[in-house]
Amino acid sequence: MDSPFILINLKTYKEGMGSNAHRIAAAAETVAKESGAVIGIAPTFTELHPMSYHYSIPVYAQHIDPIAPGAHTGHILPESVRSAGARGTLINHSERRLTLADIDACVQAARRLHLESVVCTNNDATSAAAAALGPDYVAIEPPELIGSGISVSKADPGIIERSVNAVRRANPNVKVLTGAGIQSGECVKIAIDLGTCGVLLASSVVKAEDPEAVLRDLVSLI
Amino acid sequence: MDSPFILINLKTYKEGMGSNAHRIAAAAETVAKESGAVIGIAPTFTELHPMSYHYSIPVYAQHIDPIAPGAHTGHILPESVRSAGARGTLINHSERRLTLADIDACVQAARRLHLESVVCTNNDATSAAAAALGPDYVAIEPPELIGSGISVSKADPGIIERSVNAVRRANPNVKVLTGAGIQSGECVKIAIDLGTCGVLLASSVVKAEDPEAVLRDLVSLI
Amino acid sequence: MDSPFILINLKTYKEGMGSNAHRIAAAAETVAKESGAVIGIAPTFTELHPMSYHYSIPVYAQHIDPIAPGAHTGHILPESVRSAGARGTLINHSERRLTLADIDACVQAARRLHLESVVCTNNDATSAAAAALGPDYVAIEPPELIGSGISVSKADPGIIERSVNAVRRANPNVKVLTGAGIQSGECVKIAIDLGTCGVLLASSVVKAEDPEAVLRDLVSLI
Amino acid sequence: MDSPFILINLKTYKEGMGSNAHRIAAAAETVAKESGAVIGIAPTFTELHPMSYHYSIPVYAQHIDPIAPGAHTGHILPESVRSAGARGTLINHSERRLTLADIDACVQAARRLHLESVVCTNNDATSAAAAALGPDYVAIEPPELIGSGISVSKADPGIIERSVNAVRRANPNVKVLTGAGIQSGECVKIAIDLGTCGVLLASSVVKAEDPEAVLRDLVSLI
Repeated sequence: MDSPFILINLKTYKEGMGSNAHRIAAAAETVAKESGAVIGIAPTFTELHPMSYHYSIPVYAQHIDPIAPGAHTGHILPESVRSAGARGTLINHSERRLTLADIDACVQAARRLHLESVVCTNNDATSAAAAALGPDYVAIEPPELIGSGISVSKADPGIIERSVNAVRRANPNVKVLTGAGIQSGECVKIAIDLGTCGVLLASSVVKAEDPEAVLRDLVSLI
Repeated sequence: MDSPFILINLKTYKEGMGSNAHRIAAAAETVAKESGAVIGIAPTFTELHPMSYHYSIPVYAQHIDPIAPGAHTGHILPESVRSAGARGTLINHSERRLTLADIDACVQAARRLHLESVVCTNNDATSAAAAALGPDYVAIEPPELIGSGISVSKADPGIIERSVNAVRRANPNVKVLTGAGIQSGECVKIAIDLGTCGVLLASSVVKAEDPEAVLRDLVSLI
Repeated sequence: MDSPFILINLKTYKEGMGSNAHRIAAAAETVAKESGAVIGIAPTFTELHPMSYHYSIPVYAQHIDPIAPGAHTGHILPESVRSAGARGTLINHSERRLTLADIDACVQAARRLHLESVVCTNNDATSAAAAALGPDYVAIEPPELIGSGISVSKADPGIIERSVNAVRRANPNVKVLTGAGIQSGECVKIAIDLGTCGVLLASSVVKAEDPEAVLRDLVSLI
Repeated sequence: MDSPFILINLKTYKEGMGSNAHRIAAAAETVAKESGAVIGIAPTFTELHPMSYHYSIPVYAQHIDPIAPGAHTGHILPESVRSAGARGTLINHSERRLTLADIDACVQAARRLHLESVVCTNNDATSAAAAALGPDYVAIEPPELIGSGISVSKADPGIIERSVNAVRRANPNVKVLTGAGIQSGECVKIAIDLGTCGVLLASSVVKAEDPEAVLRDLVSLI
């Protein structure tokens, strides 16, 4: 089995920018080396380039637009995040939804540019739909868990199980991430036990007093 | 096998509004009775109610918003198109794209209200994705055929075949409509032969000098 | 001076649809006749036509799209709300924001079709900006008052005064409506005293046990 | 009078990224020093930081979102473009339109962060509206000139004159840029003579064989 994958979305939190982003990236690099887990970060666009070049951990964009080079002022060209050193990209995050046609176009663009694609979804039906597009990952973010402080370990595990099954039926090559309700090593263990290959998380690392301690806890049971 | 289904999208064409809409609806009613085909129309929102009440043919909304009753000024409440007499609704038409999460919410709203859902898509991947959401119909509109004047009978039939197969694998209960490139009875026959259960079309009927004659031709080979 | 103008936005409230819409329209007609106030309603699109034809009060659309007749499935053609009998339309309501270029195009379309345009705004700067486009009305909806239950009579009157002044400087021909925080006849009086020519309101009438009594109170001090 | 301002929008052109962006920035730096004109560039987000730090010319973002630090995955935080070294930002470019309320919020955010704001508009009415929001600049991009190859020197000068006058009436502190149809030094001279303080342009520099020669021509008559 692959190493578990922990992807930290820095969003546009002030605790996830500038020197704070460096502190989190450094912590991720340290804990990844110690544990063997793969730990990635998704910084804001203007910091993709410095994060990619200063740290050995994989870096992801938070969004791409389904465009080719040309006249698209203010949009995110997939080629530009590739040039900035990104290994992959989130697509259709709950805070940046895309049309179905655009998700498909983004997944295709990512494939063409050898960017890993992580499509975010909100339930088992949309997870199956996203999987049908053939991305590398589907990250399930049940709305009832997003930013709720409710741990996935305490919530109905059926949400994740049904989505894993729906994704497998739709496209068995697509890997699944648990995308909300992750706060501790126990949550990560449950996420893995439910058949997902890792987690997508944000505030519990980004807003932590000591991100390195939280990361060490997250990988402690895997 | 069910009767073939011909759904005429009146869009916001001036040839599809007011007395013109009545002329098309009357023609559809006549040809449906003669031929046994099911012929529906999708008028603009303000004409849903009069079209539903004056004609025996099924009437469809062109769009719904994924909302519940409440404070949503200027949006299309699914309940309102139901009350106006609609049998169903288009969702995610190429001229009115929705996010994946919103398509799912619209399909669920339609199911709850006993409205038929017709989700429009642009290729085999998005057709499979839409089918995973469990609508009544997926209508494939290959962008290379939309408004092109190219007949599906002259185009690569693989586009439709691949989409039919993709939909069947994703959800065998979902019916498929051919949604572009339909101009004649031969096109309708090809659409049916390729495994779809009908067609979604617009300008070739709406902008015709004699819509009744066009409709009679469309059903002539089925 | 013109009669004060009271515009009731029925939104997509269940209390503002079907037989409920008829009850509110009938109450508005009665109170308008008694008081001499102009009372209009803005029902959902599918009910524009029946409301226009059954009642003598002016009827408004809740939104239009900046389009001309053509291939715009699922959009609101200004001509269609005109044909349905609307006297005017809301534009850029806080629940249906438009780009600046689209607001301008909608105001122009309304002018061309002899529809009254009521552009909604959120502060004095955007009120001046909207006035520069030359609509018939600007309706100021201070976000701190929308749906807050706070009466404009209790809130800082400076919000409305600054907007009235900003609109006058930008274009003295544009009339102003107070668009939030209206619950009683006293609120309407204050709105008029502050230099606006009427009010745009929703829930306090639509969700009332007895809309006719509320309307009678609203016009009682003018 | 201030030095004329020439702002080069690199868009997401492949000719405006990576080593190409460096070549254009270096040319701009050279010609700015020689001529005394102020020449700025607006690169893609991922290249804001390297462009700001390698060149002495002012660097602008192509867009900002009207957000504060927080949970806004995939959006452009004004603070992040400030940290990356931007002197200002485009707002509401014709390829990235915003709602009126969002333009206002972006202008306010830029003011708070000491970023220069350049709001793009399409005619005299929207130019007056934008000026009412109090940005530093309004850049008029008449749609009939954008990417048309038609030089502003050949087009109806009334478009620019009316917009300059409309902006002055709305807010005399706001400076105006001519935002389309600029191809030569003669165009820049006409733009200045019509009362604007500079130009916003893209393809004529970015897609030039020799950007330095084009820039030298652009400043030749001022």
